[in-house]
Formats: sequence, C-alpha cells, structure tokens
Amino acid sequence: MSGRPTIEDVQAARERLSGIARVTPVFTSETLSRLAGRPVVLKAENLQRTGAFKIRGAYNTIAQLSEEERAAGVVSASAGNHGQAVAWAAREAGIPATIVVPEAAPMAKVEAARGYGARVELAGEGFDEAAAVAEGLVAERGATFVHPFEDARVIAGQGTLGLELAEQLPAGPGTVVIPVGGGGLASGVAIALDALRPELRLVGVQAAACAPLAGRAPEGATIADGIAVKHPGALTASILDELLDDIVVVDDEEISEAIVLLLERSKLVAEGAGAAPVAAVLAGRVGGDGPACAVVAGGNVDATTLNSVVRYGLTVSGRHLVVALLIPDRPGELAHIVSLIAAQRANVLAIQHHREGRNIGVLETEAELTLETRDEEHSQLLIRELADAGFTVRRLR
Amino acid sequence: MSGRPTIEDVQAARERLSGIARVTPVFTSETLSRLAGRPVVLKAENLQRTGAFKIRGAYNTIAQLSEEERAAGVVSASAGNHGQAVAWAAREAGIPATIVVPEAAPMAKVEAARGYGARVELAGEGFDEAAAVAEGLVAERGATFVHPFEDARVIAGQGTLGLELAEQLPAGPGTVVIPVGGGGLASGVAIALDALRPELRLVGVQAAACAPLAGRAPEGATIADGIAVKHPGALTASILDELLDDIVVVDDEEISEAIVLLLERSKLVAEGAGAAPVAAVLAGRVGGDGPACAVVAGGNVDATTLNSVVRYGLTVSGRHLVVALLIPDRPGELAHIVSLIAAQRANVLAIQHHREGRNIGVLETEAELTLETRDEEHSQLLIRELADAGFTVRRLR
Repeated sequence: MSGRPTIEDVQAARERLSGIARVTPVFTSETLSRLAGRPVVLKAENLQRTGAFKIRGAYNTIAQLSEEERAAGVVSASAGNHGQAVAWAAREAGIPATIVVPEAAPMAKVEAARGYGARVELAGEGFDEAAAVAEGLVAERGATFVHPFEDARVIAGQGTLGLELAEQLPAGPGTVVIPVGGGGLASGVAIALDALRPELRLVGVQAAACAPLAGRAPEGATIADGIAVKHPGALTASILDELLDDIVVVDDEEISEAIVLLLERSKLVAEGAGAAPVAAVLAGRVGGDGPACAVVAGGNVDATTLNSVVRYGLTVSGRHLVVALLIPDRPGELAHIVSLIAAQRANVLAIQHHREGRNIGVLETEAELTLETRDEEHSQLLIRELADAGFTVRRLR
Repeated sequence: MSGRPTIEDVQAARERLSGIARVTPVFTSETLSRLAGRPVVLKAENLQRTGAFKIRGAYNTIAQLSEEERAAGVVSASAGNHGQAVAWAAREAGIPATIVVPEAAPMAKVEAARGYGARVELAGEGFDEAAAVAEGLVAERGATFVHPFEDARVIAGQGTLGLELAEQLPAGPGTVVIPVGGGGLASGVAIALDALRPELRLVGVQAAACAPLAGRAPEGATIADGIAVKHPGALTASILDELLDDIVVVDDEEISEAIVLLLERSKLVAEGAGAAPVAAVLAGRVGGDGPACAVVAGGNVDATTLNSVVRYGLTVSGRHLVVALLIPDRPGELAHIVSLIAAQRANVLAIQHHREGRNIGVLETEAELTLETRDEEHSQLLIRELADAGFTVRRLR
C-alpha cells in the first residue's frame, strides 16, 4: 500500500486503534493564551501510550499484516519514538519485533524497547549502518520493515489524531500547528482535517537547525531531535505541498522556553519536537484567526536532558544569573556579598572560587556565583547593587 | 454552613462547577503498574485549572455567597494552591479577592495570584501573622474568609473529584489513594465514594515529616509542602475517622522518586503532595485488591525545585554518581580517567578540582566527578574500573 491514503483509510485506522491508542485530551491554556494574544489549545499527545503519537501509525501498519507477515515479524531501525512504538505495537499484536539501533544509542531507549519485549540489535556507528542491518533482516527472514513515515498505513494511523481534533476543537476558524519531521503525522492530520474541517488552517513547524522543507540543510544537533530528519518522504512531501497552509521554523532557544512553560504552567512534559508548535505560536509565527491548537506530539525526554533544558530556560528568561566577582581574598568579603544578595531576595544556587587565572591579583580571588532571580530586571538590579558596593562584576550568563 | 456535607451537597457542587472546573482525565500507567505489581491508575488532577484541585472547593464556596457577601469580597491567607484557587475562583465569579501572604512568600506565587487579578498583601513573618491580618480584613470590611479545608462548602467542592472517579474507575474492587493535608480533599472524596462506590477502599497519604493524623508531629520542611498542615480540621478529622480505610506515610526520598517517575514515564509534572499517593502505591503500602488509583492532586512546583528533585531522584536511583579521585597532578592523568569512563559509556556531567584540603598530597589533586550512569549496577562497575586502574576512589553520592 504505497499510494496516498484517503479519509476512509484514516477512519479505518481509527477502528483498528479503538481500545489500543488513547484519545488524548485537549486543554485551553490560560497562560499560553495570554502570552500569545490569542486562545491557545494544547493537544496533549505526550500523554499517548509510549509517550508519543507514533503508536498510531505503527499499530495501524502491523494490524494489517497477513498471517505470513505476522509470523516473520517486524523490524525498525529507530532508537527513538518510532522504534519504541513498533516494539509496543508488535507486543500488542502478539508478533515478534527487532529494533536495530546504532551502538551509541542511549541506554534508556534501548532498555525501553526491551521492556516492550522487542529484540534489540546494536549495529554500527550511525543510522545508515542500522538501516542496512535492518534491510538485511528483511531480506533474510522476510520480516516487514515498518517505515517511520513513508507508508500510507503509517500516515493513515497518524491521521487518527486529526480525527480527534476535528471533534475536539471548537466550531469555526482556527489554526492547527503541528511538528514536521519526516511528515507522517502532518500528512495524516492534513488528510483528516481537509476532509472534515477544511476551514481550519494547518501550519507545520520545523526546527531551525534541521528544516529541509523550508529549504534549510541540517546544521548539527537540535533539542528537537524527534523532527531532525534529513529527508522528508516523497509521499509525505507531496501531501504536505498540497495541504499545508504554511511551514515555519523555531530555534532551540524558543523551543527550550516552550518546554519550561509547558512544565511550569501546563504541568506537561514535552520533548523538543513536542514543544516546537507551542514555541511557534508564542513567537507569533503561525498567523490566521481564532484559536491556535498546538499539537504536543511527544514527551520522551530523559530526566538529565530535562534538567539541562530547564536550567537553560531559566537562564534565558533571566531567572538564573551567573556572575564572576573579583574580591579581596580575606574573611568577611563573601559574607558581605551573600548578605547583599539576600537583601534583594535572590537565592544563591552555587558559589565557585577561582584563584588561578589571568587578571586575578595575588591577594584576590574570583567568585563565580549562580543566582536564582525573579526575572531579567531583578538580575540587572542585583548586578547594580554589587557594583555599587565596590565589587568588580562580570556577567557570565 | 458548618455541618458535614452530604452526597447531595457534592452533587450540587458539581452542577456549580460545570464549565468551570475541568473533568480531569484518568490513565492506566503501564510502567507504574509493572513496578507496583498491580494495575495503577492515575487521576491527573494536576491538569486542573491553576494546577491543583483547590479551585473545586474555592469556587463552590464563592458561588454560594449572597449579593452582599459578593460585594465585600473574599480573603485567603494562603500563598499556595489554595490562595491561587481563591484568586482564580473570585475572578471567575467576578468578585474582589485579597490574598494575604507572609513577606517571605515566593515571588512566583505572589505573581501568580496577582496574575489572576487578586490584591496581594504582604504581612509579617509567617502564616500566623498573615492569618491575623486576614481576620482583620474580615472584621473591617465584612469580607468572607475562604478556609482551605474546614468548611462544608469547600469539602463538597473537593468531593466532585470523587464523583468523577466513581464514573471513571472500572467496576469492581480497588483502592483510591489520596493525599491528606488539612483533609478537605480526602473528606469530600470519601463522602462521594462512600455513597456511590462503597466497594472501593480509600487510603490517605501523609508526608513522614508532617503526619498529624498518624500521630506524628511536624519535623521541619518536606518536599510535600502542599500537605504539610499542622492541624487537620475538626470537621475533616471526624469525616476521615469514619470513612478512611487506612492512613499511611511516605518519606521525601520516596516522593522524589515518584516525581521523577511521573515526569519520565507519565509525562506529568506533580508537586510533592501530588506525587505522594504514587509513592505510597510503589512502596506497597496501600494494601487491598484490584487497581490502585493514585490521585495526582497538584502540579505546582517551580522549575528550580523541579531541577533539584530530578537531580536528587537521579542520584537515588543510581543514575548520578559523584566520586572523588586522588590523582597525580600532571598532564594526561585526567585524560586517562575520562577515557576509562567513556569506555564504560557513562557521561561526565561535571569535574571539579581541589588542591587544598586534608589528605591531598603536594603533588596530588583531588578531582570530583559527577557522572551520569545507567543504574546503580553501572555505577558500581565504574568505581571498580577506576580502582583497578590504580586510582583512589571515594564515593560521595
């Protein structure tokens, strides 16, 4: 099945997914609406089983295999959300799955796939080697390779999210904002909304570091690794060319701020690709009238990465201030500084001393202070207070 | 209205809250079920407006005020979830609210209450001073003090969560696990479930650091500040005495691990009090048969606290390892160590050097390494590898 799926294919996928995938909730976010200057609705697909939309397409594909194909099992070459989804869907369907991943794949993802009962094969350095091994398994065993996006069954499965939106979103105009990587989710949702809610605009979002549809070549790592795809599919690109109203990009700083806002205000954990639509809405980049619905497509971010992003987001929003102070190396000076900071109701998160280095005199020490502040204004006030007290202050972050 | 509310009061509250409070979703968590050895259902009340259940009771109270009472406005002496809820509910009802908070209250909470349109008064050092100022406002202006729990209208409002659970939980036996602070939520839910689903057990959870119902005096700060209440109410205690099947405690370490699991696996942000029921279920402390439903009552935790909890949780689960190594202070030694670590596929998060201190020789330096590991076993393997290579290794965390 390689042609473009129809709305009937998407509706058939919904039947197959009934009782398997969750119908994920939508919420209006008051804070995000205020910040964006228009009503903002979140489609919380990060609450989907396995933490991302991918099981919709994977299960819809696997459920259509013949008895012979089922016996030979399925193969995926993804260590990410799609690989997890194939492992999970195969277990639900009661058939064997092999996930081939590069040797450097994060252990957490490998363990998650194993946890869903898949056989995991470590192969080579990168994605290309893993794909070659996966193709070998297909040739040897007659296993079915489940493509992450370039397959009408996968696209139809992802489209079931669009059927839900068609029912969940209020009547009238509006804009649905959706992440675009390989384009499977966006294509499926586009087909569903075009058939059922043609008055809604559909805007795709790519990460600035990797935006092939916007004519930008990949430029290295991005926090939105879930949509960092080198080449969208020919099938998905042809659907998106016709049905997407606009395609916009967001950078990693904007995505990080969106992740922190979703955490703090909406109580939802979003991965970079999942937060990208929120970032696009907040940046005022999606256009159109009426409510903007941001599809929070996934939430699979490990705790260590989440910590880094939150730290970065707090720094960007001026709530983490890092300054270096040159101070005389004698008792009492640090106490003086700390009491100045306390008087301004800022919180000291860390202090580090440096005695070696250029520009540090023999009787001086440099203290690097990491402070928690209210906002950028509060940070600037603190810097002024420390300078007024006679300290040489250098802002690092 | 100070008597015990009836199921009819709770049902009337639901009518008032229709279109105001969200019906929050329930999810079965596969990972938590596996860890707990029984089906675990999450009631995601952290997705409620303002991030906690408190608006149910606050709005139900405010919606019953007379015209005269509405004109005089409402007062609260809470900087936490209840204060936010009173501010929010008063705005929804179109009446003025004053929130009195101690001067040391976190700015973020003060700003949030202001963001909901409340007047915020800073008063005194602690809660007692704030309460005295709030009482003054009641005497002066005839304003209505909205109590956080000891009020039949508040209890009936919180009970609407129980009406939702009665419909959302599968038929048959099971155990509902709920945080207990002042007891308003637990009392309301107990009344609802006793009337509609008497076959369900109801277990209350308190933080070990502050468990008055379990006969334990408060012992200082806890991550579950939302349930750190010195005295439960007389009304709520009388209801809970009769209707609660059991009351258990969890400590801050267990709560922190539950917060990290909810973040990583369920994509939900929970505050300490909100995660306490999950901690109790995972600790095997709630008893009973059938599914355990953990009420994730709130998600209001600021990003900085969340970062600390996640770091702590990663350390507790063995995924953060901090070791001190004595090494000869010459080029190449650190490179040797880092390559040993890389060979074991662990990630270096931070390195600090100490040249001063007891037990550090004149030509030695102590390097403190913070490493990200897979699990406790992986941490122990790394320590052995470093020791085998001849380094003196001291585990710090």
